[in-house]
Amino acid sequence: MADRPALRPLYDERRAGPVSEALTLRQRVFAHIDPAARNIEGLSFFNKIVVLVVLGASLAAILQTEPALARAYGRDFFWIEISAGTFFAVEYVLRLWTAPDHFPDMTAARARIKFATSPLGLLDLLIIVSIFSPMIFEEAAILRVLRVMRILALARLTRFSLALRYLISAVHERRYDLLITLGFAGFLMLFGATSLYWLEGEIQPDAFGSIPRALWWAVITLTTVGYGDVSPVTPEGKMVAGAVALAGIALVALPTGILAAAFSDGMQRRREELKSQSEPDA
Amino acid sequence: MADRPALRPLYDERRAGPVSEALTLRQRVFAHIDPAARNIEGLSFFNKIVVLVVLGASLAAILQTEPALARAYGRDFFWIEISAGTFFAVEYVLRLWTAPDHFPDMTAARARIKFATSPLGLLDLLIIVSIFSPMIFEEAAILRVLRVMRILALARLTRFSLALRYLISAVHERRYDLLITLGFAGFLMLFGATSLYWLEGEIQPDAFGSIPRALWWAVITLTTVGYGDVSPVTPEGKMVAGAVALAGIALVALPTGILAAAFSDGMQRRREELKSQSEPDA
Amino acid sequence: MADRPALRPLYDERRAGPVSEALTLRQRVFAHIDPAARNIEGLSFFNKIVVLVVLGASLAAILQTEPALARAYGRDFFWIEISAGTFFAVEYVLRLWTAPDHFPDMTAARARIKFATSPLGLLDLLIIVSIFSPMIFEEAAILRVLRVMRILALARLTRFSLALRYLISAVHERRYDLLITLGFAGFLMLFGATSLYWLEGEIQPDAFGSIPRALWWAVITLTTVGYGDVSPVTPEGKMVAGAVALAGIALVALPTGILAAAFSDGMQRRREELKSQSEPDA
Amino acid sequence: MADRPALRPLYDERRAGPVSEALTLRQRVFAHIDPAARNIEGLSFFNKIVVLVVLGASLAAILQTEPALARAYGRDFFWIEISAGTFFAVEYVLRLWTAPDHFPDMTAARARIKFATSPLGLLDLLIIVSIFSPMIFEEAAILRVLRVMRILALARLTRFSLALRYLISAVHERRYDLLITLGFAGFLMLFGATSLYWLEGEIQPDAFGSIPRALWWAVITLTTVGYGDVSPVTPEGKMVAGAVALAGIALVALPTGILAAAFSDGMQRRREELKSQSEPDA
Repeated sequence: MADRPALRPLYDERRAGPVSEALTLRQRVFAHIDPAARNIEGLSFFNKIVVLVVLGASLAAILQTEPALARAYGRDFFWIEISAGTFFAVEYVLRLWTAPDHFPDMTAARARIKFATSPLGLLDLLIIVSIFSPMIFEEAAILRVLRVMRILALARLTRFSLALRYLISAVHERRYDLLITLGFAGFLMLFGATSLYWLEGEIQPDAFGSIPRALWWAVITLTTVGYGDVSPVTPEGKMVAGAVALAGIALVALPTGILAAAFSDGMQRRREELKSQSEPDA
Repeated sequence: MADRPALRPLYDERRAGPVSEALTLRQRVFAHIDPAARNIEGLSFFNKIVVLVVLGASLAAILQTEPALARAYGRDFFWIEISAGTFFAVEYVLRLWTAPDHFPDMTAARARIKFATSPLGLLDLLIIVSIFSPMIFEEAAILRVLRVMRILALARLTRFSLALRYLISAVHERRYDLLITLGFAGFLMLFGATSLYWLEGEIQPDAFGSIPRALWWAVITLTTVGYGDVSPVTPEGKMVAGAVALAGIALVALPTGILAAAFSDGMQRRREELKSQSEPDA
Repeated sequence: MADRPALRPLYDERRAGPVSEALTLRQRVFAHIDPAARNIEGLSFFNKIVVLVVLGASLAAILQTEPALARAYGRDFFWIEISAGTFFAVEYVLRLWTAPDHFPDMTAARARIKFATSPLGLLDLLIIVSIFSPMIFEEAAILRVLRVMRILALARLTRFSLALRYLISAVHERRYDLLITLGFAGFLMLFGATSLYWLEGEIQPDAFGSIPRALWWAVITLTTVGYGDVSPVTPEGKMVAGAVALAGIALVALPTGILAAAFSDGMQRRREELKSQSEPDA
Repeated sequence: MADRPALRPLYDERRAGPVSEALTLRQRVFAHIDPAARNIEGLSFFNKIVVLVVLGASLAAILQTEPALARAYGRDFFWIEISAGTFFAVEYVLRLWTAPDHFPDMTAARARIKFATSPLGLLDLLIIVSIFSPMIFEEAAILRVLRVMRILALARLTRFSLALRYLISAVHERRYDLLITLGFAGFLMLFGATSLYWLEGEIQPDAFGSIPRALWWAVITLTTVGYGDVSPVTPEGKMVAGAVALAGIALVALPTGILAAAFSDGMQRRREELKSQSEPDA
């Protein structure tokens, strides 16, 4: 859906109402549930509720994985899930019903099939199924999968982020720069890992006994996380590790700078487009 | 108080004296104790003393929590606190007395009530009470609360930071950008935590036995702090953790860039306003 | 080879074919194997294959150092290496054959000698030798060296990175700034190491018993890696370490900023040159 | 000495010789030993030698603190030090002799006293004394102090860094911004330390039993070093620590940004001044 930039807004924020009184019920519902149907930054009241329910249901799914909480508040979690599932089901039906307003140049049936088979449409359905299916299945392994799947509900929020589209295109333009800096970082990692495999592979076989093992140390050092579960012990190893750590802060910082610039560009473009939409005749 | 940008300065720095000789005693006192009564960067002599007393009293309150120091220098800490408390009490009375000059369009009584019920006015009173009440109460639990409360005195310094107002408004303008980057960082954290709950939840139940537990690992890894109290041990876990650490340095750096730009904007605006105030006729 | 910016492209991307039909077979081969023979960003189909084979052969060499994988997939690794080695040998012969097109102002023999004695030409030969020689030698020590040498194949990728040249010159221009910030960082490291040698040298002789030993701590702290294998234990040591850590984040960040700016400059210049090449008559 | 920007160069780089043939011997020596006597970036041959001797002597002093190296190469270290000391003594005498050329508007005696009592002049003398005095004193404690003092020789290099002056003035201009961000970072540190003293002071008295102790944890966490020697263990402590770590990456990054901008400004000004010096008539 994110690929349709020029959807004509049906809801006029400046008049705090629909753009025209001659709208059908479906169009009025559509104006409230589709984020692209409004011409200003921000969400409709209905979509604010959707965001809150998604966040609440995800939080419940997260907390439920903690055995102590699951035992103590099992009933509450159950009702929170059933309520959220019902809400999502109603929302899904409404989105399916109003799909023809989102794709005005299609027949109603084709528009609904297009929504139902879109990634976000399939995700919506999957989450509803994952919430209600534990009532049918009782195997622990399946329940475990279903439980984690419910956290996917958070991905539904991407529907509301029109900014995402601009970000992705801004990152895409700089993909070549990013690739080069990532290539440098990769070379440095491999250089560090190979050096320590060479220097300490026989002293600390668990940590540096092979290059793939030494790469764990290299990644954790170059990102400056530094757990300390593995670190060199010989003077030569420490010298190489120190040089890698020093070189790393510079090399790892480069992709950050590129991404930050891409993000700033993406947000800027988004603001300009929003402005040009809200001043159509200027 | 920070919401009154256009208070007319009573003290003229260029003449190193009050703007007019026809000032009452209260106005002269006010010109020395209210940071907004001066038209240049920097603090009056009286307020410099206030800052030093606040810093000294807070340092004493901090050091006093160390049992060894509390035993050795108990008497000194006691006298430092009593002196600071007396100073704060006198300062509070002066601010209450001169409140009508801060709110010139109110009656004297209303202005004083407004100051006494403002957040900073209440904080001033609370700190004075917390310093003198240990003489009355003797229960350990209450004393402990009072002791920490005295460190709040540091928050009194915000009174002198006119820059704060500009910073808050600059951050507010970019709140949408910040929210999006924080949302990305949150997604990444949750992704990492869920993955390691999935991969190592049964091997290291203390560290990754539930998503809330795994989130501690995810936060400490994505911020690149990396205590090393919990870290993955399986090859799969290490692969996911390495990818999360790499992605994290980029994603966590984005809010930093936005905040830095907001800070720079805020300082710029502050300088421009200070300049336009000191050149009123240009 | 990177020192020849103005090589005339033989392959015209816009026509998806050679610039002229009157090319010899050698020129046509050259247009496919030499990255400098094309006037647009990106690689020819043949060179994309080369990149994939290099990455695959390196990955195999890396994984092979893990004993478990070497035992389980020994035969597969053997065949991957033989295939990659054969491919590299054919590629080497082709590059040697077409060298006269790369250096059009030399005789064919001199051009081939120049290629064979260039760093990248020697590297190509070295890698081919390191792949096939294990069939002759059987001593473990030599095999170990040969195995690591095969990872050098990755360095062959630098042939395709025309961007590298611009980066190096951009860094070179700022070498003076970089040197000064590195000097500051070095001073700070030495100051931290000397302080902790002084303060904790006798308490923790293994960690701080000499300045070279304390430098390991200083590097790992200033880069914010912080393994935690050595850290101060006395209040004085912690005070100095805290001050060094705080000062360090600022000082270590400076070279990062300079490098990021140099990288951005280098990429910019590269883009401009590519643009001026593809619009020769504008 | 750094406070004299407009010293007239005596040595003309473009002519690769003195600006005039009518120079006295002292002026010719001065043109070689005083970094400010040249109108281009870079050092004279004599000063390059000085830098190398300083670096060599410091390296020897550092390595000598390692007992194993001191035993094995004691004689070599001894001769390196004596040679460096002799070189420094000759250099000191030359600088003293040519001081009148550095301060041309003073009498010769006053200029030499000014040099001898300047910080760098005193440092030069101190280092020479620290190198030769071990021949007189034999107490271990004094020798230890003298050994560390020799590392101070590195500070002699600041003489050659004309860039330092510009950097200091650029930082000075932004001191107010820096102070505010450092104030924020300080608040955050104190907030974290107080919270964990409150939450885990009784569970981990060694780590969080007082606010000064908890500040060690706060500094190491906010700088993202994260040794892991102390970290929270309760869910509440972990929640506060996670929030502090997240807030910290933003707040600690602000001074970095300001310093980077100040550094960039300082280097820019330096380049402009060098340019205007080398093009005096343009």
